[in-house]
Order: sequence, then structure tokens, then C-alpha cells
Amino acid sequence: MRNIKAVVEYDGTDFSGFQRLPKRRTIQGELERALAQVMKEPVRVVGAGRTDAGVHAAGQVISFKTECAIPIERVCVALNSALPRDIAVKTAEEVPLDFSARYSARSRKYEYSILIADQPSALRGRFAWQVSSELDLPAMREASAFLLGKHDFAAFSLSRSDGKTTVREVKSIEIDRRDDVVLIVLEANGFLHSMARRIVGTLVEVGQGRRPPEDLKTILESKDRSTAGKTAPARGLCLIEVEY
Amino acid sequence: MRNIKAVVEYDGTDFSGFQRLPKRRTIQGELERALAQVMKEPVRVVGAGRTDAGVHAAGQVISFKTECAIPIERVCVALNSALPRDIAVKTAEEVPLDFSARYSARSRKYEYSILIADQPSALRGRFAWQVSSELDLPAMREASAFLLGKHDFAAFSLSRSDGKTTVREVKSIEIDRRDDVVLIVLEANGFLHSMARRIVGTLVEVGQGRRPPEDLKTILESKDRSTAGKTAPARGLCLIEVEY
Repeated sequence: MRNIKAVVEYDGTDFSGFQRLPKRRTIQGELERALAQVMKEPVRVVGAGRTDAGVHAAGQVISFKTECAIPIERVCVALNSALPRDIAVKTAEEVPLDFSARYSARSRKYEYSILIADQPSALRGRFAWQVSSELDLPAMREASAFLLGKHDFAAFSLSRSDGKTTVREVKSIEIDRRDDVVLIVLEANGFLHSMARRIVGTLVEVGQGRRPPEDLKTILESKDRSTAGKTAPARGLCLIEVEY
Repeated sequence: MRNIKAVVEYDGTDFSGFQRLPKRRTIQGELERALAQVMKEPVRVVGAGRTDAGVHAAGQVISFKTECAIPIERVCVALNSALPRDIAVKTAEEVPLDFSARYSARSRKYEYSILIADQPSALRGRFAWQVSSELDLPAMREASAFLLGKHDFAAFSLSRSDGKTTVREVKSIEIDRRDDVVLIVLEANGFLHSMARRIVGTLVEVGQGRRPPEDLKTILESKDRSTAGKTAPARGLCLIEVEY
């Protein structure tokens, strides 16, 4: 038995998210279909981040076990020829059998792109949320500081915890502007369902002057899902890196 | 009667090109449908460049005549709300009645993006041609110099001229590298069918060392369509600017 780790890139627009679902086009579903074709056996894929419908990835990490003897340097090319255009395998390497793309991950990094423009963009709107007002970045940075460290992020999750812990450690939030795009890069040991997009949505409300920065502290402490801002659209979010 | 000039952006991936065609999804077709809805009358659109299927635009220019009294500052918003996500109107202004987006244009500028990468990119492959070999840019620049100025570009056209002139004036060809992308920007008073993509395809063969730079001169002088290189894929091409 071999265990293979691969870095995967995808344009999430036309997928119902990462996780396999019956009769839906999903990243996991397409990867498992391509792997079965290449490895000539059923293959089960584990992903580092279960990205939502419409969310993209430049650096998703997957792992899978296989009996197939295909040389490791052939894995990328073989998989890419079996995958649709909107998923691509960037690198593949053999790892110890106890490695899991999901459970071995120490942190995930997401990038959110906000296009500051009066009109929608047909070329860039696929990978960004278009916002027509200027954003106050210093206020957003001040707000984001309240989220750093280990906290119960229940207020920023979209679904109930079902008894599982909602404590996560946010390692960094960087907010920068590059031309007409505001980029928010969030790194945490893990993210709850919709957490990254709810944080971004709330920070944008701060940037628009509709909430004071201190609101983030109040929301966090409330642990109440109804207090956070709107969930930013999936199109702007991209899983860029996973650390092990 | 009013004459309106508008700058239009589109992701050409899911279109059968600019020009209206029965039962096909085209840029002109979608624009005329949206205009009829907004202006409450049939509207005929004239475009500066009749881009092929799959070719994108960041700065296509259109003009159309209408009796509709809609304030000019409302045109963009009204049209964008009637257009699909992959077309967007960026600006609109009133122009003299004798202005034609097509016939008044003095030059068109296209940008071609080549992604230098071993594996395809799911995120960037939509707007770039992936080439796995490094390209010799000095050789490509040397080759491109033969095309500058007024010439008969029949050898670089994909279709017969049907008696129309195939003489065009190429004003500039700039070839630069930005990280892992080679950008070729071509400006000419006009382009024959597939001319930009056939020039790019031939220049890439020079960049790969499969043709000497002087071949461009030989091809041009031959006026023979069978001598040019392959046509580069539509996905890498974008109409970025039209000058009047």
C-alpha cells in the first residue's frame, strides 16, 4: 500500500464544493473518478479543507492510498489528462502511511479578493467579490486584531457545532490593497463552516463604516451566530496553502 | 436619434464569438437582447473587433443608435443588470451620429498571455495558453520586428480574403515576461481573421527554437497561408483597447 500527497488547484465556480455528494459535481467526486481511471481501482480522497460550493483553491492538499505501482513522477500528468479543465494536480509525492491531508495539517491559509469597482467585472468577477465603496483598511486591520489567537468562533460559523469544538486558533489576518483589489489573507489551524467568509463579510462592514472595529470583539464573545455580519460570496475565496 | 459608445468587457469562454449567429450564444446577441430589454426597442450593435469564439475582451468598444431617452449615466447600471455575469459594460457616453465603433477605429490592441508551466492551471488556464517549454524572448522580439509596418498579412489569415484587402499596418508588438507569464501585446490598425493568434503561434515556434526569426519575413512575403505557424488557442487572447 502507498500513500500519496498531492497539491490540487481548482476553479470552484462550477462545483458543489469539495465533498462528494450524490449526483452533484464535486472536487472530491471528480478526483476520485480520475484516480479510479488512472489507478484502476477505487480510490478514496482525503482533503485538507472541505471548501464550500464556489470556493477556489490554488493549494488544496489531498492524500490517498493506492496499491497501484504507477511511478510517482507520472502521477501529475496521468491525473491531469483524466481531469476536467477546472481541476489540476500541481505536484504529487509519496508520504508515510500515517500521513493524512486532513488530520496532519497544522494550518490552512485562505485568500479573499475584493474588487473595488463601480461596475461588475466580467473578467475578474469570477475570482473576486465586487464592492462599489472604498474600504477603510486601517479600521479593518484594527477589527481583525480582535480575532487573533485561540477563541471560540461559534459566532462566525454558519452551521451548528453538533457538540464538536468551535475553538480555533487564528494565526494571522493580513489586509492589503493591490491596485483595485483588497486582499485579505487568513491563516488558522482550522476553519469552521463559512468562518472565513463570515469574518470577511463582517470586516467589510467595518471597512464601509457600518460597524465600529470593536464589534468584532463583541461578536466573538457573544458566541451567537446572529450577531456576525453577512457571509461574503464564495467566488472571492481561495484556499492558497496548507501547512504540515 | 442618439448614438452611444460603450466599452465592454467579457469572458469569451462560453461564447461562439462576438458576431450574432442564429441559435448560438454570442456577445453581440447577448448585448442586443439586453439593449432591447433596457431601451424597449430593437437595437443593433456595432463592435470594433469581431472577436472569435473563446477570445476575451477587457476593452471592446461598441456603438448603437437608439431613440430611448434613458439618461446616459444610467446606461451602464441598467445594461449590467440585464446582462449575464460574463459580459459587463464599463463605460457609456453619447457620441456624434456619424461615429461607428467599427469604422471610426484607428487601431486595435490585443494582449496574448502564455503561461510557462509544466502542468495545466485550473485557475489561470481560462485566460492563458499553457506552454511547457521556456521561450527565447530575444529571438521572438527579433522575429516580430519583421511584421512591423504596412504589409500584406494574407499568410497570417485563416480565411480567404474574398477580394478584400489583406494589407494591415502593425504599429507595435511588445513581448515581455511577468513572473511565469509571457505577454505579447499587438497593436495594428486592424486584424484579419485569426491574424493575432497565427502571429502568436508562429512567434512561439520561434521562441521554442523550432524556426529561425527570419522565417517571419519569408512567411509574410509568401502571402501563403500554409507557411505560417499554428494558430494559438483563443483562450489566451484578449482585446484590451481600441483607439479612435
